[in-house]
Amino acid sequence: MSQFAARLKEAADRINVALDALLPREQGSESRLINAIRYAALDGGKRLRPFFTLEVGRMFDADEAALLRAAVAVECVHTYSLIHDDLPCMDDDDLRRGRPTLHRQYDEATALLAGDALLTFAFEVLADPASHSDPQMRCKLIAALARAAGAQGMVAGQAADMAGADTGSDLIGVTRMNRQKTGALINFSVDAGALIAIASEAEKTALSRYAHDIGLAFQMVDDLLDAEGVIRDTGKAVGKDKGRGKVNFVTVLGAEATRERIGMLAKQAKQHVAMFGPRASVLREAVDFVVERRY
Amino acid sequence: MSQFAARLKEAADRINVALDALLPREQGSESRLINAIRYAALDGGKRLRPFFTLEVGRMFDADEAALLRAAVAVECVHTYSLIHDDLPCMDDDDLRRGRPTLHRQYDEATALLAGDALLTFAFEVLADPASHSDPQMRCKLIAALARAAGAQGMVAGQAADMAGADTGSDLIGVTRMNRQKTGALINFSVDAGALIAIASEAEKTALSRYAHDIGLAFQMVDDLLDAEGVIRDTGKAVGKDKGRGKVNFVTVLGAEATRERIGMLAKQAKQHVAMFGPRASVLREAVDFVVERRY
Repeated sequence: MSQFAARLKEAADRINVALDALLPREQGSESRLINAIRYAALDGGKRLRPFFTLEVGRMFDADEAALLRAAVAVECVHTYSLIHDDLPCMDDDDLRRGRPTLHRQYDEATALLAGDALLTFAFEVLADPASHSDPQMRCKLIAALARAAGAQGMVAGQAADMAGADTGSDLIGVTRMNRQKTGALINFSVDAGALIAIASEAEKTALSRYAHDIGLAFQMVDDLLDAEGVIRDTGKAVGKDKGRGKVNFVTVLGAEATRERIGMLAKQAKQHVAMFGPRASVLREAVDFVVERRY
Repeated sequence: MSQFAARLKEAADRINVALDALLPREQGSESRLINAIRYAALDGGKRLRPFFTLEVGRMFDADEAALLRAAVAVECVHTYSLIHDDLPCMDDDDLRRGRPTLHRQYDEATALLAGDALLTFAFEVLADPASHSDPQMRCKLIAALARAAGAQGMVAGQAADMAGADTGSDLIGVTRMNRQKTGALINFSVDAGALIAIASEAEKTALSRYAHDIGLAFQMVDDLLDAEGVIRDTGKAVGKDKGRGKVNFVTVLGAEATRERIGMLAKQAKQHVAMFGPRASVLREAVDFVVERRY
């Protein structure tokens, strides 16, 4: 197992244990809601976003407990966004990570509410003194997460994605949409690690650029997998975007030019963290993982 | 105009101005989403919850700017909850405050995302240094708001409401559901004012009890209006609960016993703030307003 694969697995294990410990447990009249929240949040995703938070913080020997709580908040926001994106009025997906989506396993109302609860919970986790001894740091993380998730971040990207060819049918439009839809939270994942580590401005900038490039590459790979993948590999329905008249990197650039750009972004992302030397070797391996993944 | 009516109007005006100033403005590809957010948030509601925050803080001469931002956060969470509750998979309502509900005016996906954005925005507003100079206070408010809104507060109440007779067909069940569904945010509205004002523990307890009682009375009046009201008065569809097999105070207690309890709660709520003397006269008038309202 590569150093990266070991670290990713270790991060996923830690996130799963922390999520299980922090998420509310079923009790009485809320049992259906709580079970739904846990079904969605504890479903064995890759945990790539929280991995970034933990790994960036680790480079600076930052406080592990603070990193872990920020990582949990990231994963809660990611899970909420998947739940809401899968709903019938959005992408109307039946499969997620190889299992029925939440509204298929439960019902639409429960899925809507479970998503709302997870988004709210992310802020509750970060506001708690257990997240960081310095309330100023907690506020900074909350503000940054809210910006990444809100009407100028993920929500805006999702709205643009739904609008499809009406708004973003050129490369600039698609790039902007994806910066918001997936890039914003990947950036927060990396930035949160640097914030907690009290990295220098130059270090924070370098890491943010790394996150920017890996975020775009990530989405381009997603779009390639959607166009070419098989359901067995991705665990979710494929060929969706074209069938729905949606625009993405592959519909705008074609597969070949998309692959070329992925290669350029990967190279560039690694260069951004060159300044950290061997400390960033796992982050560099993460680039290859994102680019080569088949799921 | 009574002192209360004047204060409520003044509070509503201030909230409307602050919301208009703070909410994102339309631009480019996000214009539809932003317009939807503004349609829902700037729709001329009573602004009763933010009124409580402002009025409680005013009793202690607390910082006006801090109170106003907390009040804005309260109203954003309230609006988000109305948007999501109105969706087809929830209460499926066509009218809200006399206008088409958000998903009727726009579409379901936009309504879902606008709700998500407003919930997120509430935390962004509170995390900002402009909300309060002390980050510890900001974190306290965020944590309390997240608890009121989350899987053990509003979301849990809404889930129990959807489950209907399955979970809460007795008075204890209905009371618990309403404490979560509407009581939790009314309590936060009052508690936030007391928190910002750095009220004493005894004062905070008295105000929390006031909020508890007025919150229950508020919901009981809502249930009476639903059972007996006319669409012209409430600006929303009525007679919904019974038709849907939902349980509420009127279906469990009957109208007469519900009216009796409202009277008891109103009296009790006023007693809780008696310790503040004339300073609480507007809060006492607010009780009469809640009890006598026809919309």
